[in-house]
Amino acid sequence: MKIGIIGSGNVGGALGKRWAALGHQVLFSTRRPDSEEMKTLVASAGPRARATTAAETVAASDILLLATPWPVTREMVESLGELNNKILIDATNPLLPNLAGLEFANTSSGAEQVAQWAKGARVVKAFNTIGDNIMEQTTFGEISPVLFYCGDDKEAKQTAHQLAAELGFDPQNAGPLTQARVLEPFALLWISLAVKQGFGRDIAFQLLKR
Amino acid sequence: MKIGIIGSGNVGGALGKRWAALGHQVLFSTRRPDSEEMKTLVASAGPRARATTAAETVAASDILLLATPWPVTREMVESLGELNNKILIDATNPLLPNLAGLEFANTSSGAEQVAQWAKGARVVKAFNTIGDNIMEQTTFGEISPVLFYCGDDKEAKQTAHQLAAELGFDPQNAGPLTQARVLEPFALLWISLAVKQGFGRDIAFQLLKR
Repeated sequence: MKIGIIGSGNVGGALGKRWAALGHQVLFSTRRPDSEEMKTLVASAGPRARATTAAETVAASDILLLATPWPVTREMVESLGELNNKILIDATNPLLPNLAGLEFANTSSGAEQVAQWAKGARVVKAFNTIGDNIMEQTTFGEISPVLFYCGDDKEAKQTAHQLAAELGFDPQNAGPLTQARVLEPFALLWISLAVKQGFGRDIAFQLLKR
Repeated sequence: MKIGIIGSGNVGGALGKRWAALGHQVLFSTRRPDSEEMKTLVASAGPRARATTAAETVAASDILLLATPWPVTREMVESLGELNNKILIDATNPLLPNLAGLEFANTSSGAEQVAQWAKGARVVKAFNTIGDNIMEQTTFGEISPVLFYCGDDKEAKQTAHQLAAELGFDPQNAGPLTQARVLEPFALLWISLAVKQGFGRDIAFQLLKR
């Protein structure tokens, strides 16, 4: 697949590198393709990755991964223009400063906002519930952590499912896009445990069934 | 321990039965101790369980488990009067009708409300994130599902930890009582998957660490 990364920070960088290593074409969107940071990222991602402008990233990609810091998300997404039915995987979380909570929760979600801002895109929420360290090294021994996704477009969800499975996750369909109202707080559970409650970042969840 | 169950429905019944079988004294609070339903529950819970009024349940118990349907929770808790430093384990979730969301979330939580209503009690949130079927039969093969608790009183949290461990859970301290703001949405994730998204109720989560 041709995957464009919007927001080439920790999460976008980790996912882009791994997908490039798995054989996908990856474009990292950036305002400064020639910065040392981007050169380092592109070099470590190998020959199938490149850094370029947001406009070229959108034009040349079938699938967009949105991994921006929440405060710049709206401006960034709206600046992308018409997205022509592209699949947009929303990995953001609408975090308030100091992890004080979520800007939207319970009665709406970041994903539902993103779906309004991303004109013409098919939005699926995924890759928001665990840290970039788990995206870099996914499995725990033999165990695959669960990776929930949700959305209203079947093909977009199948794409997120496949991209998660390729990384070693156990991808699970959590339902329609409104389920982001529980998946974003689920992210805050992981973040609060990892960052504030002393668990550290090497934690994840396995979905148990019987 | 002497455990009083406030709200002797599915969750209170399942936990009370198992704790009685493990050797604890259990009182099921009820308005109708002589109803067929309560007689059946008490009979199945064995010789260490009894049904009685809320007033006697509170007076005779060291620890209270709150497992009421949310709409009656405030009235029930306030009717208990002064709770004299007793430990109250809050297993409720502030669910809106039709699982449309939570009455409090993100900026407050049911647990924080309960702590205001329960005069003089030491409140710990626990046993709210999975269904009563998982409380009845806890493990998945050899695997213990995680059971998060949170609160501001050390002894109350230790008690919840022990009572969860005795049932076969992997108890984990999620932090202060404000963490109920993520544990209650975590419950809604379980509930929505189990009831609405086709996963069924025999699901739970294992906490993975490395």
